[in-house]
Amino acid sequence: MEYVPSILDLLDLEYIEENLYRACGVFGEPRRLYGGQVAAQALYAAGRTVPAERLPHSLHGYFLRQGSTVRPTVFQVERDRDGHSFSARRVVAIQEGEVIFNMSASFAAPRAGADRDAAAPDLPLRDPLPRWNLPRHPSFELRTSDTGRRLPVRFWLRSVVELPADPLLHAAVLAYTSDLSTGLVALEDGAAEAGPSLDHAVWFHRLARMDDWTWHELEPHTVSGGRGWYTGAVYAADGSRVASIAQEQLFRTLRPVRPEPSFGTSG
Amino acid sequence: MEYVPSILDLLDLEYIEENLYRACGVFGEPRRLYGGQVAAQALYAAGRTVPAERLPHSLHGYFLRQGSTVRPTVFQVERDRDGHSFSARRVVAIQEGEVIFNMSASFAAPRAGADRDAAAPDLPLRDPLPRWNLPRHPSFELRTSDTGRRLPVRFWLRSVVELPADPLLHAAVLAYTSDLSTGLVALEDGAAEAGPSLDHAVWFHRLARMDDWTWHELEPHTVSGGRGWYTGAVYAADGSRVASIAQEQLFRTLRPVRPEPSFGTSG
Repeated sequence: MEYVPSILDLLDLEYIEENLYRACGVFGEPRRLYGGQVAAQALYAAGRTVPAERLPHSLHGYFLRQGSTVRPTVFQVERDRDGHSFSARRVVAIQEGEVIFNMSASFAAPRAGADRDAAAPDLPLRDPLPRWNLPRHPSFELRTSDTGRRLPVRFWLRSVVELPADPLLHAAVLAYTSDLSTGLVALEDGAAEAGPSLDHAVWFHRLARMDDWTWHELEPHTVSGGRGWYTGAVYAADGSRVASIAQEQLFRTLRPVRPEPSFGTSG
Repeated sequence: MEYVPSILDLLDLEYIEENLYRACGVFGEPRRLYGGQVAAQALYAAGRTVPAERLPHSLHGYFLRQGSTVRPTVFQVERDRDGHSFSARRVVAIQEGEVIFNMSASFAAPRAGADRDAAAPDLPLRDPLPRWNLPRHPSFELRTSDTGRRLPVRFWLRSVVELPADPLLHAAVLAYTSDLSTGLVALEDGAAEAGPSLDHAVWFHRLARMDDWTWHELEPHTVSGGRGWYTGAVYAADGSRVASIAQEQLFRTLRPVRPEPSFGTSG
């Protein structure tokens, strides 16, 4: 059976030098590196260069090249700013001398103040829902009724690995899980399907424990020009919104259905 | 009367050296630099380093420091990658030796293929709607029924300045307009209001002419920990979605309403 590291193995980054970390939790077989893994490791590396009371509130990344699961990845952190309230970091993830992912992230201590959600999710009962099997992600358990799709768009998720009470680690685990599916499956048909991720953004609104259950809702918005875009929301079991996700992906067409877009002259 | 440059003045970047541009369209009076202006200029500078057939499909930026309207801004472009299909760029915007904004953006030629929106907007008739006055943004005309709010969340917008048929320029103009309002006004009350922008992301799904009318819908999602998050959608007059927006802002509280969040131990 193929060796697959746990989420804690994957986030066990080796300190090489100030601002330089290496992820050595490699897999038993060479595969395309999962984007959520690189994003999680990059966020965790960036967070280790920030005062402990400052937690990530957002990350924005681009997937630039295909990574491999059997190579270590090096994370190089640039300390853009440590201001009065916020710390800004940029990170590049490198395999064999090439940048496979770049990311910006920002960190701040949560403040007291207004606390409200514009809408509450409709949380289904978890226990009657079937399990969704994730052989490449054995640290996570999913429950969903989306059994007719290639991937689920509404699901309960938790880490079956107990996680230490480190909020940076839980944010990194959330980043890991934020790329497990795609809202664009809802726009797929026989002629086109969602392909590799282009970018990835996560906003961390409230603290969340990822070894407790969280409810994930992914929503497709549009497909055009060979790309598609969806957003996602992650809720704690009490219905509070703990994170939001936005991602653009390639949307591969099997047969062309319209001509190349053109840009008209002014009317 | 105060001098306010037009959108074309603001995007008339001076070429200094390869990968280095300067925006000299300064205002008559010193004010906080408008974030959409810096994002638009950064996108336009990045786009000038990319082959003309590759157009921006997304940008992700962070506002790091307050800029001023009476100082020129320098844009320094890093060419992260020119691949088979995509060009990736990072840009920093500098005033007086300090980075005020950083941005990543990606460019690609639009491809033929699947073209669909998950939902169609409910477009109101434009002519009966009152004008919304934008004295600091005289190149733009807005029509909205949101007259009871501090800022509108659903509005028609167009450039009253005729724009050349350059799709990169129109994308930069769209980026400019994408920060004019905030969906968070809908969550404001006497105790708290939306403050400065923290980050900004725009996805360009389809080509859009910004001297034609576009319909903008901003949607608030959550406020917590001193920050709020909203998304936006921009539609052409035919109802097709041309762009999406996501932004986090400070959400300033006038009186505290709950204690500091704390992170519990594992249950």
